[in-house]
Amino acid sequence: MKYKIQFPNISVRFFYVPILMIFFMNISLNAQIQRIEPPFWFSGMHNPEVQILFYGEDIAQYQVSTANPAVITNVKRTENPNYIFITINTKKVTGTAVDFTFKNKNKTSFTQKYELKERRKNSAQRKGFDASDMMYLLMPDRFANGNKNNDNDSSTTEKYNRELPGGRHGGDIEGIIQHLDYIHSLGATSIWSTPLCEDNDAEYSYHTYGQSDVYKIDPRFGTNEDYVRLGEEMHKRDMKLVMDYVTNHWGLQHWMIKDLPTPDWIHQFDNYTQTNHKRSTISDTNASKIDRDICINGWFVPSMPDLNIMNPLVLKYLCQNAIWWIEYANLDGIRVDTYNYSEPEGISKWTKAITDEYPNFNLVGEITLRNQGLLSYWQKDSPIGQIQKFNSHLPSVMDFALSDALQIIFDEDDGNWDKGVTRVYDIIARDFLFPNSSNLLIFAENHDTKRFNQIYKNDIRKYKMAMTMLATIRGIPQLYYGSEIGMAGDQNLGDADIRKDFPGGWDGDTNNAFTKEGRTEFQNEYFNFTSKLFNWRKTNDAVHFGKTTHYIPENNVYVYFRYNATKSVMIIINNSPETRTIDTKRFQENIKNYKTAKEVLTDVIFDLSKAIPIEGKSALILELK
Amino acid sequence: MKYKIQFPNISVRFFYVPILMIFFMNISLNAQIQRIEPPFWFSGMHNPEVQILFYGEDIAQYQVSTANPAVITNVKRTENPNYIFITINTKKVTGTAVDFTFKNKNKTSFTQKYELKERRKNSAQRKGFDASDMMYLLMPDRFANGNKNNDNDSSTTEKYNRELPGGRHGGDIEGIIQHLDYIHSLGATSIWSTPLCEDNDAEYSYHTYGQSDVYKIDPRFGTNEDYVRLGEEMHKRDMKLVMDYVTNHWGLQHWMIKDLPTPDWIHQFDNYTQTNHKRSTISDTNASKIDRDICINGWFVPSMPDLNIMNPLVLKYLCQNAIWWIEYANLDGIRVDTYNYSEPEGISKWTKAITDEYPNFNLVGEITLRNQGLLSYWQKDSPIGQIQKFNSHLPSVMDFALSDALQIIFDEDDGNWDKGVTRVYDIIARDFLFPNSSNLLIFAENHDTKRFNQIYKNDIRKYKMAMTMLATIRGIPQLYYGSEIGMAGDQNLGDADIRKDFPGGWDGDTNNAFTKEGRTEFQNEYFNFTSKLFNWRKTNDAVHFGKTTHYIPENNVYVYFRYNATKSVMIIINNSPETRTIDTKRFQENIKNYKTAKEVLTDVIFDLSKAIPIEGKSALILELK
Repeated sequence: MKYKIQFPNISVRFFYVPILMIFFMNISLNAQIQRIEPPFWFSGMHNPEVQILFYGEDIAQYQVSTANPAVITNVKRTENPNYIFITINTKKVTGTAVDFTFKNKNKTSFTQKYELKERRKNSAQRKGFDASDMMYLLMPDRFANGNKNNDNDSSTTEKYNRELPGGRHGGDIEGIIQHLDYIHSLGATSIWSTPLCEDNDAEYSYHTYGQSDVYKIDPRFGTNEDYVRLGEEMHKRDMKLVMDYVTNHWGLQHWMIKDLPTPDWIHQFDNYTQTNHKRSTISDTNASKIDRDICINGWFVPSMPDLNIMNPLVLKYLCQNAIWWIEYANLDGIRVDTYNYSEPEGISKWTKAITDEYPNFNLVGEITLRNQGLLSYWQKDSPIGQIQKFNSHLPSVMDFALSDALQIIFDEDDGNWDKGVTRVYDIIARDFLFPNSSNLLIFAENHDTKRFNQIYKNDIRKYKMAMTMLATIRGIPQLYYGSEIGMAGDQNLGDADIRKDFPGGWDGDTNNAFTKEGRTEFQNEYFNFTSKLFNWRKTNDAVHFGKTTHYIPENNVYVYFRYNATKSVMIIINNSPETRTIDTKRFQENIKNYKTAKEVLTDVIFDLSKAIPIEGKSALILELK
Repeated sequence: MKYKIQFPNISVRFFYVPILMIFFMNISLNAQIQRIEPPFWFSGMHNPEVQILFYGEDIAQYQVSTANPAVITNVKRTENPNYIFITINTKKVTGTAVDFTFKNKNKTSFTQKYELKERRKNSAQRKGFDASDMMYLLMPDRFANGNKNNDNDSSTTEKYNRELPGGRHGGDIEGIIQHLDYIHSLGATSIWSTPLCEDNDAEYSYHTYGQSDVYKIDPRFGTNEDYVRLGEEMHKRDMKLVMDYVTNHWGLQHWMIKDLPTPDWIHQFDNYTQTNHKRSTISDTNASKIDRDICINGWFVPSMPDLNIMNPLVLKYLCQNAIWWIEYANLDGIRVDTYNYSEPEGISKWTKAITDEYPNFNLVGEITLRNQGLLSYWQKDSPIGQIQKFNSHLPSVMDFALSDALQIIFDEDDGNWDKGVTRVYDIIARDFLFPNSSNLLIFAENHDTKRFNQIYKNDIRKYKMAMTMLATIRGIPQLYYGSEIGMAGDQNLGDADIRKDFPGGWDGDTNNAFTKEGRTEFQNEYFNFTSKLFNWRKTNDAVHFGKTTHYIPENNVYVYFRYNATKSVMIIINNSPETRTIDTKRFQENIKNYKTAKEVLTDVIFDLSKAIPIEGKSALILELK
């Protein structure tokens, strides 16, 4: 495998370029043009300009013009003659398409139509997911195989092999659509699916983080139209569609990687250079330049060339691609993979371009840091970022500090100072470091972490405590598919083991966890709890956007309140193995004049003037009355 | 023991008040007055006002006047008739004293002279300790008994008992003075002695944090004049005197505690209420009020009533007392005990009052927090404090994050991600959170922590690595007495075990570690290293105020540079047990055109174009040439 991608070496290079069909375009391509990206655009955007990439053999030799010369505002050629980048001002376009005339020195000429579609009504004001939502994270290849006809596709290399843990198992968009009611019944209001665009790697392509075409849904998942339909079906159910977007890298099979527009489209090294993963170098004023450079420019894995977002062409390409998907698929949010693996200046511009177009949209970034000060650095308008005049413009960051804690505390001994539930207390105690702690994505596990139910050996008491916390502390709870039926898996056996097929997603599965009847008793116990909890959560806005008051844990019992002007919820987490009796006097500043409390899962009524008993390793959610 | 101090109950109360001699005043007290505090003041202060406390039986019944009525700007009486607080404007005073006339309803009258002394030249511009210093921390009772005649004193309860680990061992100011040359020879340029003011507790008074008179040196340590002499002797040696100041509490035996001026002079509770020590509640916007109140108002221990610095009389008293000592004893700095155990608003005003008087002074606060974000909160002009519009005005905070790390890393397995020297790397990587990381006090141990040499079982290699780091990373290194001779002690056996008598400080000590001849071979090995290291440190300003560049540790080897325009020092810490060979290419951005490097302790010359070998568990300090 070569890591220094040779350039220029056009004659050789061209053998690698397949001429692909552009399925989803309703304007046909001229013979000289193999690709146009974005394939179409939209009129009436906040940013009236769009930079159109035309790709074709020696396309750069052509002069490009439009009938109204004011339409074209910039023409950019690169070292590679197969690319030309034409920027147009959509405000100058009359009608719904532009006709480009390409003319070369030999007076050969052709025209190419480019469509400007109408936007959906109120598209710019679309509202993203927020703390009133619960987000269900799934991996489409592992969720449900709704359409067996697309398990293999002639245009993609890796074939269906469900026997192989890291192989393609056939799950697809149709499978998600078929089980939207299941997800909805769980109390989820939003779905984050791991990437769906084409990943044509020869192996391990199922996770799809090494994309080969970012304007095209992988045919083994379905079509672009299927993805649009997924959004439509979700919106019918008041659910929000969140796309997993990868800014940091593409796959080696990406068509542009095989014929780079410019050598610095990606970060290149004489020898393969992997990122050092030390994200702190970015804000560290003492960091060496070499460490910071390798952190940002080093590759994630050998199969994923690291995009150079500081190249304005790359930045523009990625901005437009994300905006295109928002408009095209009517997205409600984006999850950004490896957000802080890109140069901060570049990734911030990317995020700002999107939030400038959609001021009420939400994007959550994967920020793989555990220190709250450093995590805060990456959230929009952070006071920590401000120290370095840095603003990521990223509305939401993932709370890895919390997920780390949740993965250990329920096995920790009773202890007040820094273990057990005090770890969570300490995290919430530092919320002031964040500009907006209620816009943190909170989770107990995801597709990159250990499986919660594996760690805790399917002790459902610990699952219930963790889910109770996710449902009631500040932030946007995210549930990883399978959690809700007690799915486990050992990361030590490889990532595939934490990404098992959801039972019932495949014809012939003997266990169908999508239905009450199909679930085992064990699975129903998990499911019923989860479903009741998150459906209750929908009804109480105090746990969405209310204030928090929490109390220093005593004897491994953590008590906190979420409240607003009209509602107040008291949460008690007893992480000790023994029954505890909670004297309510200490909480008078929150209990105020409330007299009784109803536990939301059991409907048991408690008298707040008396001590509250709570079993060992359990939680209570009390709505104060 | 009663924790709710009864009030008012004058008839009983008065039995407790001893009429004490004021040794150090050169103006005698009138019979009606038992105490005047401050006992004198200074003319020409930035703040021209001073609030004088007069204490005597029913003193409040008197009207107080001066010949020039403009001198008195405020008269404050409290619920306790034995106090009157008179504020004067020193600018209105002619001459060097004020004559106060006290007159009561029965026309009885008397006068009381109050002196205003002249300040030392440039007193206001005095310069505090800084990163060019090395601070030696000692406990006077445990350092050296220079004057056996003051081992017991009739005015104080606890008597000499060197057999008792937690008893009084007789060390004193004279003992410090006699060994200044020893401390100086170690490379120390500053001494922080734990408190020296009178602590008249019946037991465990040796640590002196429960003071009974804050205008008087404990007679078992010496006199106020002895303390002034200590400063003079230190200044002759270019050393700086740092006083340990306690703002949070006094001892139960303090004369004012026994006859409280007002009930809210201290925090009182129906039942003894101890602080919860959860300092995060102060900045935590989610904290319950009750937790925050107990954090700040709860007592440290039953014998130390918690001062209410939000009472303006208390605040003024504490401000003036500290300023009085700075002027009187010619201090170069203050270490503030339990700084964040006081109400932040009050303690910040205290600090600001001092730094307003002495803009170049330094105060270091004991901030018992480990998270850098929260530690930063407490440093002057902190961007983290700014989130809550809070400014402590405290120039320096103790770096407990670092000391925690140093106490574990040298026993940790080789590992890059978050253990071993990477812990220190991670701390330095967060320096940007601090407004001034070079003004952090850094240490491997102090009188409240485990003994470093106990943890590491006197493995001098680990001591050398830790001291090398303290001598070369940003901040003000602090050495705890005895470290330098390998002194150990087990905190599990009680605090006295980490506060052992310095060998040689007592007549008859068979081991005299103050001299080369008296030290054992083992002790000389520690001493010689320490002395050479910190004497070298004096000579290289790059490690005082230079910039830092550090490199991600690899294989448990941490490399960093300190440099300024003219000097550059490369430090290599090999925390692995194996010899490593360090390829210098990685460090080119710091090595630049330097060709060779001299190791400062061994004088060995290294060729920077070649790899540098370093033994396992060792450090190199290389001055680049």
